[in-house]
Amino acid sequence: MSIKLFGFWRSMATFRVRIAMNLKGLKPDEEASIDLMKGQQFADTYKAVNPQMVLPALLDGEPPVLFQSMAILEYLDERFPKPPLLPSDARGRARVRGLAQIVASDAHPLYVPRVRNYLQKELKLDEAQVNAWCHHWQAAAMRAIETHLAGDKETGLYCHGDAPTLADICLASHVVACRLFKLDLSPFPRSVRVVDECLKLEAFARAHPLKQPDTPKDLSH
Amino acid sequence: MSIKLFGFWRSMATFRVRIAMNLKGLKPDEEASIDLMKGQQFADTYKAVNPQMVLPALLDGEPPVLFQSMAILEYLDERFPKPPLLPSDARGRARVRGLAQIVASDAHPLYVPRVRNYLQKELKLDEAQVNAWCHHWQAAAMRAIETHLAGDKETGLYCHGDAPTLADICLASHVVACRLFKLDLSPFPRSVRVVDECLKLEAFARAHPLKQPDTPKDLSH
Repeated sequence: MSIKLFGFWRSMATFRVRIAMNLKGLKPDEEASIDLMKGQQFADTYKAVNPQMVLPALLDGEPPVLFQSMAILEYLDERFPKPPLLPSDARGRARVRGLAQIVASDAHPLYVPRVRNYLQKELKLDEAQVNAWCHHWQAAAMRAIETHLAGDKETGLYCHGDAPTLADICLASHVVACRLFKLDLSPFPRSVRVVDECLKLEAFARAHPLKQPDTPKDLSH
Repeated sequence: MSIKLFGFWRSMATFRVRIAMNLKGLKPDEEASIDLMKGQQFADTYKAVNPQMVLPALLDGEPPVLFQSMAILEYLDERFPKPPLLPSDARGRARVRGLAQIVASDAHPLYVPRVRNYLQKELKLDEAQVNAWCHHWQAAAMRAIETHLAGDKETGLYCHGDAPTLADICLASHVVACRLFKLDLSPFPRSVRVVDECLKLEAFARAHPLKQPDTPKDLSH
């Protein structure tokens, strides 16, 4: 059975799936780069893969294709249980999923390209206004997560204990995005420490948006 | 052990948790109404409960409080397994979670009060522009879900087979919201049929935003 990943270098949701696959020791047999900047997600060929026309999508052997990064992460964790991406206790899983959803539900969807396009093209906002919008929602999520990490004894080397979980995968995608958007992260030292710890792991570092085969050469490092 | 739910009548994420609790035969021993229109979510007392200052939050016996509706739904399904809110197979669970996340990640967070407030107060949009924004993202999610429901043999009486799942809970919250915003739902007959089927169930009907103790009297029915 072969795994095909539909993604894009700068898609933060694709970044999450890449990290999870790396942690599980999986490598996609095929990767399709869907250029979000060129609007390739709206092509009929991709719409047939994922009707929502967003990234990522994952084909695990047989169709149908799996969609939505959080659903894909849970699927990968069920199908390839080691190492686990969720704690062993129900309350721990709830905390990890809650932290992950602060990013995946309440922050990232507000600064994706389709939303920035709407702000620019439909609402005629200038670059400074679009940046202020992105920073506003990015910082709101950072404040919530920072407070959680500071106030809970479950916080360890990573968001929850000393092994990376879905929460770290999502927080890493968010902090990397915040850095690309040049958000001031100095008010969030615990979150930054956790993500820097994550990025020491090869599974996270190798999945970084600036290190993909489709990353533009002037940005890759 | 007692369960305390922090919610608000018109919070769609609280609506989801209410449905799940009803399906599981659970009743909160205590409900705290946090008035989002009056900004009670920003009070220090609620910030101490949920640092993200959003609804819902759930206290299951001992602290810490559980947060983020999707994490709470997964927790309830783990702790009270019957009836299950997820299918028994990994691919089925991925489809259900994917459909749920189309709403919970990519639609609902774009039309919540805090975002509408930003559009009105920071960006000085008028009512028609704010409505157009909400309708744009509401319809995008409806189109994606409608295509999934139309094209997959797993679709049954509900989104996935003949028992309600997380996907139905999220789709119901979205369709009820779309109706409150007066979105034209005629292009999405399969989704509407599924939600109308859900609302025949007492667990969904009783959880409806317009039927809560804190629903304003002129709206409740």
